[in-house]
Amino acid sequence: MPEPILPTYEDDFVFAESKPFALESGGSLQPVTLRYAVYGNLNEARDNAILVCHALSGSARAGDWWPQLFGEDGVFDLSRDCIICANIIGSCYGSTGPQTINSATGKPFGANFPLVTVRDWVRSQSLLLDHLGVEKLRAVIGGSIGGMQAIQWAIDYPERVENCIAIGSAPLTAMGLALNHLQRLAITNDANWRNGEYESGGEPMAGLALARAIAMISYKSEHLFAERFARNPNRNGEDPLRSLNERYDIGGYLDHQGEIFTRRFDANSYLIISKAMDNFHHANGRQLEHETLRRIKARVLLVGISSDWLFPAEEVKALAERMREAGVEVEYAELQSSHGHDGFLAEPQALALIIRSTLPANHFVDPDRRKR
Amino acid sequence: MPEPILPTYEDDFVFAESKPFALESGGSLQPVTLRYAVYGNLNEARDNAILVCHALSGSARAGDWWPQLFGEDGVFDLSRDCIICANIIGSCYGSTGPQTINSATGKPFGANFPLVTVRDWVRSQSLLLDHLGVEKLRAVIGGSIGGMQAIQWAIDYPERVENCIAIGSAPLTAMGLALNHLQRLAITNDANWRNGEYESGGEPMAGLALARAIAMISYKSEHLFAERFARNPNRNGEDPLRSLNERYDIGGYLDHQGEIFTRRFDANSYLIISKAMDNFHHANGRQLEHETLRRIKARVLLVGISSDWLFPAEEVKALAERMREAGVEVEYAELQSSHGHDGFLAEPQALALIIRSTLPANHFVDPDRRKR
Repeated sequence: MPEPILPTYEDDFVFAESKPFALESGGSLQPVTLRYAVYGNLNEARDNAILVCHALSGSARAGDWWPQLFGEDGVFDLSRDCIICANIIGSCYGSTGPQTINSATGKPFGANFPLVTVRDWVRSQSLLLDHLGVEKLRAVIGGSIGGMQAIQWAIDYPERVENCIAIGSAPLTAMGLALNHLQRLAITNDANWRNGEYESGGEPMAGLALARAIAMISYKSEHLFAERFARNPNRNGEDPLRSLNERYDIGGYLDHQGEIFTRRFDANSYLIISKAMDNFHHANGRQLEHETLRRIKARVLLVGISSDWLFPAEEVKALAERMREAGVEVEYAELQSSHGHDGFLAEPQALALIIRSTLPANHFVDPDRRKR
Repeated sequence: MPEPILPTYEDDFVFAESKPFALESGGSLQPVTLRYAVYGNLNEARDNAILVCHALSGSARAGDWWPQLFGEDGVFDLSRDCIICANIIGSCYGSTGPQTINSATGKPFGANFPLVTVRDWVRSQSLLLDHLGVEKLRAVIGGSIGGMQAIQWAIDYPERVENCIAIGSAPLTAMGLALNHLQRLAITNDANWRNGEYESGGEPMAGLALARAIAMISYKSEHLFAERFARNPNRNGEDPLRSLNERYDIGGYLDHQGEIFTRRFDANSYLIISKAMDNFHHANGRQLEHETLRRIKARVLLVGISSDWLFPAEEVKALAERMREAGVEVEYAELQSSHGHDGFLAEPQALALIIRSTLPANHFVDPDRRKR
């Protein structure tokens, strides 16, 4: 893992102070804080901004979790581009979320946090860009839930997006909805969850760990697991033939992934973001998908990941085809990887190569292109 | 669903009364009861027996869960064949299991029930056949864990098996081990589980339901889910966009499957059988797979299910190839089905057709063939 790239600055943007931020679900929030990080500098024309959107458990610090996309072999050049990344509403990394004190009750929102959607996130980010004086994004990019945001940006703010890059993103299929449902059930089954009103020190750790472990099988592929873990006993010397608690290596791996996740993530945030992932459909709230997609003016690159079974490449490809039928300038590319959905984080060099070869540098820098 | 076929008789076979039944794990049980069901009648020579082996949640009453394999369009003809099916040790359908009183403590075994293996099940069944005076089986057949037993039968008792038919069976891959691990975790996470010492009325229902729901996604295929549930809201009128608890149809389906399962199955039995499924490898305890497979004298039919991702068809096919390399008379056939692993239960007519066309009736009845 390369060193993280440090942000030029990190800040909080607070809005909806005087009137509530209305949410798609019908709920509202007031006020709203967005924690955001900026890498590089906005130029004078403020037309060199790239918005990076994070996935379920990510943070505003894109340089921590996508460092390989910065720099020479990456996609972004901090001497040219200004990267902006905002933590999504509902998360536990600085933006307003279930851990925030609800001004109406004086207590944390907990499970009373209102449902948020990808559209809400995108609208909140548009307010941040207004605040920063950025009218138009040279590109918006993300993987998974981050890619959902990129697609929604291109639909909801067609005039503000030049290039839209979404990796491993499409509306979830029934199997994806099933996997998310099981993860939420793992949390709400935990006696410590207490309808979301758990307190510090009494968090539903076991449930959150199981949710993460279920998610891990959906993020990876059977071939990667077969290669890495096969039917080996857990590497710490356990013998699965001996007792109920002794594990195969894959069991030890999943438990470990679950355990470390509980140290860094909040169960109520997990529920809210997982639900937003379920509910993403770019045509939600609009009658016809075709008409919705016709709104897009950005050049779009959709990347499917060959071994992804949470967002199967065929789903991503089919979305690209429907975009093309709607007149969108869209490219589909496939990242060959055994890492499954995680490929967008696990194979950043290969991903950067795909992005660079599909969206040549001049799409980012050629001012004539931007004016078209 | 056709009417179940009633057994000719159902009985308990009790053994290991004077000395313990030693288990592969090192533990032992004394005494041991096998609940078994017989359909049709043993002929005078006692050479018309077919052993049907059940899967994780099955019972001895094969006529309840595989009725389509009996009768005219099926595989078995009760005027000719005598079907025997025994509930596996560890189950909760009549044979010795975690709910049985441990004579050493006067309390139910609970989570202290010793680990059992597919080899233990097969050995216990061989004692039942001794008891019934059946020296040789015309066929042993099963799907999933039932197929594991069929394969183990052909290896451990090569002189006693003429035809071995296993559907959707092979040693689990790392992904399969992962799915089982998550299911067991769902149960042991439940506060009601109490290290397996739960009492009547205080069973770990939510954990067992989640385990079953996780299992259901591994038993079905993404295409079946897409076709049946798509992104539809739960059919009872819930709106998943409105609140955290409102579900998509697939969520409602999984919850329902989990809930009905808790009415008919025991959590400790689930743990024990799931662990045996993990631990099945036909070459366990023997050094070389090739030498192990060379023991087989039965004619073998392995059936892969095209959309099975718990026991991928390619794994079943690869096992058939390794059997062939070891000199086994083996056929591989593929059941084309969108039902995933459940195909062996969901597509019985198609399965029966495959079995009939691959193992012609005379393989069951031709006495010359049986003598070879």
